[in-house]
Amino acid sequence: MNLFYTTPDLVTPKLLRLTDQEAKHATRVLRIRTGDQIFVTDGNGKLFNCSVSEIHKNDVTCEILDVTLEERKSPYITLVIGLIKKRDRLEFAVEKCVELGADEIIVFRGDHSEKGNVRLDRVESTVLSAMKQSLRLFLPKVSFAKDLSAAIDARGKSMSLIYADETIDKGETQHLLGDQLMLVVGPEGGFSESERSILKERGGVAYSLGEKRLRTETAAVTITDRYKNGLLL
Amino acid sequence: MNLFYTTPDLVTPKLLRLTDQEAKHATRVLRIRTGDQIFVTDGNGKLFNCSVSEIHKNDVTCEILDVTLEERKSPYITLVIGLIKKRDRLEFAVEKCVELGADEIIVFRGDHSEKGNVRLDRVESTVLSAMKQSLRLFLPKVSFAKDLSAAIDARGKSMSLIYADETIDKGETQHLLGDQLMLVVGPEGGFSESERSILKERGGVAYSLGEKRLRTETAAVTITDRYKNGLLL
Repeated sequence: MNLFYTTPDLVTPKLLRLTDQEAKHATRVLRIRTGDQIFVTDGNGKLFNCSVSEIHKNDVTCEILDVTLEERKSPYITLVIGLIKKRDRLEFAVEKCVELGADEIIVFRGDHSEKGNVRLDRVESTVLSAMKQSLRLFLPKVSFAKDLSAAIDARGKSMSLIYADETIDKGETQHLLGDQLMLVVGPEGGFSESERSILKERGGVAYSLGEKRLRTETAAVTITDRYKNGLLL
Repeated sequence: MNLFYTTPDLVTPKLLRLTDQEAKHATRVLRIRTGDQIFVTDGNGKLFNCSVSEIHKNDVTCEILDVTLEERKSPYITLVIGLIKKRDRLEFAVEKCVELGADEIIVFRGDHSEKGNVRLDRVESTVLSAMKQSLRLFLPKVSFAKDLSAAIDARGKSMSLIYADETIDKGETQHLLGDQLMLVVGPEGGFSESERSILKERGGVAYSLGEKRLRTETAAVTITDRYKNGLLL
């Protein structure tokens, strides 16, 4: 099964359109034809079962046969991940976290991040592919924060703050439960002392992922899986 | 902290040697000098605290200052993963599973594996790097099996068989506990009917990783983390 994506503004009660990359992918790579039945999501919880009615170069029109609405699974997870220089590692982390259910992703420049910029367009395209690949119906929002404070201050009041900390013992770890969780993972090299103070001042709780040293992307994937999927020890 | 690796045959009661790639890496990349204190593991649970005594081109001799012995953490996990064509995805899966504690890795050619060969030397080198990076002291064994039967028949009698199955409901999932677990993850495209029969005939138990579709490498990483680190629902 292939899942396509369209923005909510291209959906009317009876018809929806795929445009740009999605239309190209549908017609040139997957070679859909008029009359084919396809699944489309608006990235906002709706799954449309459609019949393709018109195909133009960059525009595909579909008749909506039926719609199902999925509720977002609780807890809402905002993953905050330190910028890592190797682009494939960052994109891999993001891809896996979306597959596992992250609802929002913020990449921040940590004090220990190596120089280098994030290509936000590439991260967004990774997020979109991962959503479709894993048949998820909510498109995670992606943003960049210039530092850790900017990332965590953007959260709502009811969002709990949890950070992966390799310096604490597993026995000391605490679990914050809640409907909205912000999970923070530092870059390679971990948090600076100043970042650690910020996390504590903002009420952050340290979570140990185990006694061994994990790479940033591994920490991001396991903390997302554990919190989103209710696997806490 | 950097961790180096040497094979048990290069260790005597008072001295040990680093050779080949490890010696080159130590001298040329990390630029160790005579008198430096370094940590070395034999990949078999021993951690040597050493002082570098002699440096030659491809051979470094170290004096052993003290040794600590770590016990292997139970359960012993053999990860059996279907060959995936994209080499970086396979190597990524292997790297993450080693970081998370997999004890042994078998790559098998699944009925749905796309054509392509596995470069076992590259997988081994990924395993070695991941062990050192995560400061683990047990070097996972890596092997290739021509098909699923060959992979699972190699296991010992007391090893339980668990396979990631996306076709069952989470409610139906069972947990097999034990000291020795073989965790099987299919290639992209999943298991064939014949492979499914083999898994059932051999007493395999299906485990659901959730209701969404996960890529092979994501399934491998999460099932390893969940079973090795005791995170079962």
